Amino acid sequence: MRPRYFEEYNIGDKFTTQKRTITDTDITLMVSLCQYAHPMFVDEEFAKTTVFGRRILPGVLTVSFMQGLTESANAWDISGVVGMVGLNNAKFKVPVMAGDTINVEVETVAKTETKRPDRGLVTFKQTCKNQKDEVVVEAELILMILRKP
Amino acid sequence: MRPRYFEEYNIGDKFTTQKRTITDTDITLMVSLCQYAHPMFVDEEFAKTTVFGRRILPGVLTVSFMQGLTESANAWDISGVVGMVGLNNAKFKVPVMAGDTINVEVETVAKTETKRPDRGLVTFKQTCKNQKDEVVVEAELILMILRKP
Amino acid sequence: MRPRYFEEYNIGDKFTTQKRTITDTDITLMVSLCQYAHPMFVDEEFAKTTVFGRRILPGVLTVSFMQGLTESANAWDISGVVGMVGLNNAKFKVPVMAGDTINVEVETVAKTETKRPDRGLVTFKQTCKNQKDEVVVEAELILMILRKP
Amino acid sequence: MRPRYFEEYNIGDKFTTQKRTITDTDITLMVSLCQYAHPMFVDEEFAKTTVFGRRILPGVLTVSFMQGLTESANAWDISGVVGMVGLNNAKFKVPVMAGDTINVEVETVAKTETKRPDRGLVTFKQTCKNQKDEVVVEAELILMILRKP
Amino acid sequence: MRPRYFEEYNIGDKFTTQKRTITDTDITLMVSLCQYAHPMFVDEEFAKTTVFGRRILPGVLTVSFMQGLTESANAWDISGVVGMVGLNNAKFKVPVMAGDTINVEVETVAKTETKRPDRGLVTFKQTCKNQKDEVVVEAELILMILRKP
Amino acid sequence: MRPRYFEEYNIGDKFTTQKRTITDTDITLMVSLCQYAHPMFVDEEFAKTTVFGRRILPGVLTVSFMQGLTESANAWDISGVVGMVGLNNAKFKVPVMAGDTINVEVETVAKTETKRPDRGLVTFKQTCKNQKDEVVVEAELILMILRKP
Repeated sequence: MRPRYFEEYNIGDKFTTQKRTITDTDITLMVSLCQYAHPMFVDEEFAKTTVFGRRILPGVLTVSFMQGLTESANAWDISGVVGMVGLNNAKFKVPVMAGDTINVEVETVAKTETKRPDRGLVTFKQTCKNQKDEVVVEAELILMILRKP
Repeated sequence: MRPRYFEEYNIGDKFTTQKRTITDTDITLMVSLCQYAHPMFVDEEFAKTTVFGRRILPGVLTVSFMQGLTESANAWDISGVVGMVGLNNAKFKVPVMAGDTINVEVETVAKTETKRPDRGLVTFKQTCKNQKDEVVVEAELILMILRKP
Repeated sequence: MRPRYFEEYNIGDKFTTQKRTITDTDITLMVSLCQYAHPMFVDEEFAKTTVFGRRILPGVLTVSFMQGLTESANAWDISGVVGMVGLNNAKFKVPVMAGDTINVEVETVAKTETKRPDRGLVTFKQTCKNQKDEVVVEAELILMILRKP
Repeated sequence: MRPRYFEEYNIGDKFTTQKRTITDTDITLMVSLCQYAHPMFVDEEFAKTTVFGRRILPGVLTVSFMQGLTESANAWDISGVVGMVGLNNAKFKVPVMAGDTINVEVETVAKTETKRPDRGLVTFKQTCKNQKDEVVVEAELILMILRKP
Repeated sequence: MRPRYFEEYNIGDKFTTQKRTITDTDITLMVSLCQYAHPMFVDEEFAKTTVFGRRILPGVLTVSFMQGLTESANAWDISGVVGMVGLNNAKFKVPVMAGDTINVEVETVAKTETKRPDRGLVTFKQTCKNQKDEVVVEAELILMILRKP
Repeated sequence: MRPRYFEEYNIGDKFTTQKRTITDTDITLMVSLCQYAHPMFVDEEFAKTTVFGRRILPGVLTVSFMQGLTESANAWDISGVVGMVGLNNAKFKVPVMAGDTINVEVETVAKTETKRPDRGLVTFKQTCKNQKDEVVVEAELILMILRKP
């Protein structure tokens, strides 16, 4: 099978990923492995005193779930993706907590040629929503993708 | 103890975090929990055919370790931090693999007042380096921090 | 100490394993590592719309707990077991959810000699029950076991 | 989107899943959670004395990876799958060790109507191979799948 | 930066660590990795019949959290610590369960010179408390610490 | 089945546990969950500069594996154990690293009656050895055990 090439991405293309429920296991394990230290992530007694009332998933980990959900989306063929080049304008709007179920809307918003004739850059706008249809995080992802030979 | 306030952050302030070795356990667990699907992350036989020669840590997970190392840095008092507002200009330069040891240089690069008189935004430039002193990821982090009452 | 030999297994022998409570950590971690994708396992909002009302443990993972509980049963001496040869007639009757406590009744149901004079095959019927005494999974396990020298 | 119905499965249909490298993290974590006790799985010094020379992944866990890889295969639309009914004739031929990369060939081998007019059973033959193209495990999986309304 | 030397520890010095909420993920994972077998740790139905009413964290794992919280305390500079030599008089008073939030009060209670002129032993009394201010575990920790050159 | 009572423990009784290989997964996960911060546990570059040459398992986690191996020992019936009361005289002699295989020799060394006529205290001397037959940790464990009615 041939990969999906840069030329086959069109500005305005959209797809939506599957959904995943974030569990307390996700939060505990990844907060611990990454050594997050803010009490909002590790101290439930502190978290009870905040507006959120519970420990939350660190924002960058929400972005990490967004990438994973995007990569594993049935609606997307990642076969031409060479690597991630950049991440821009991530905006953290609503925190994700244990029990929340999220998915991501992905839209192709820009295409850029590079010096290398065999690769181009595609920018995707990602909008992550929870089960209440609230936008939790927005981000722009820049991927390097193979061009047609 | 009183928190470290917005007013006490100065542009040009710098500190360096402790170091952490990224293990295959980190990669396997977090790639799996976040459902990363690209063969670069889950298929060692594929990875052997790439310029890197081995499975790598997804870039956003490197950014996640950067936040965790920053939060738990002995050199930084996070007591006034209310939350993360944004993440900008993340540039992925060198991949992180199992066995690499990383730390982060953090510099205060901008301060912005907000409508709320009790909080301000501070932008930090993060430069993550590996054990060969290569810059692996750069990113800008915007945190909301308490102002003096 | 000498191993427990093929000759020492008798058809009709029975024992019961210890019990283990299946936790959300078990489900989240193993579903993620094995890359189960059905929303029944990863999407709590979907699961709420089903007859079960909650995410469940994939059936094969219940079988995996059944083998582990069987191996670590105080009532069984596994010292003569060389390896697993087959698994037959697994029937999935009731799903296992976080908070359920399971154990396994194990009965020796068949013995077969092989071409190799130093080993034989023993078939065990496993019946896994939950805390309500419901049969959740039945399976037949075929193990290769050392024969007396 | 409508689900893929029972009527749309044809005997002889085949697809192949993505690949996944089994890591020592997979083995350690799942062996521990499931309480496997045989020294082949937990005692490297014992394992060195066997023909395999190293700790191995328990066979049922290989079957679990086979289901996960099957569910998350790009080539398969699981939208009509209601649940797993049975698992038959699993044969364990070659053990899987840390560093092995596996995938699964899946073939539709039987279709059975049931009393319920809205569901049917489909049997899939799964053949799991490692990076040396050796067959490691074969199994037959019976799924309940929605029928056309 | 120079390390904090043996000579800089004074009997009667005290500090308090940050707090950490113990989760069911902590209990399930560490109980499984360490192979704890008592039903108090793995069988919720049994645990319901005890005075505690729920599975608990094994006492030695509470001590392990106590060491980790002590090492990562903002209030303590561990730079001169060479290693742990002993652990004494651990007393288990109240069990820790999922959802409890603990921290540790650490007091320097003894200093001992050794034959090696470059190292000394410092004994710390650790008192671990939960969110109800109950003492859950006490222990004495003996660390080897660098002396001034 | 009736529990094994206090009266059935005899000073001088000995047994040896099964063996377990400590993996890098064990070290990474438990060090992270417990927040151990010393570079000996999280920074491989630092560890290379020490006499050990590699990251090690924190001593208290070795003690935790010792308890788990003791509880799950085939040679020991824990049915009468009510709880752990104390841990004394733990001496850390040789560090445990990834790949080491440990087991524990357990000897009954003291029995003490308590005010409660239905329970007594039994002290066990635990000697943990690695695959080179080196003593890595010694400790004394005090358990509360049911007395005969």
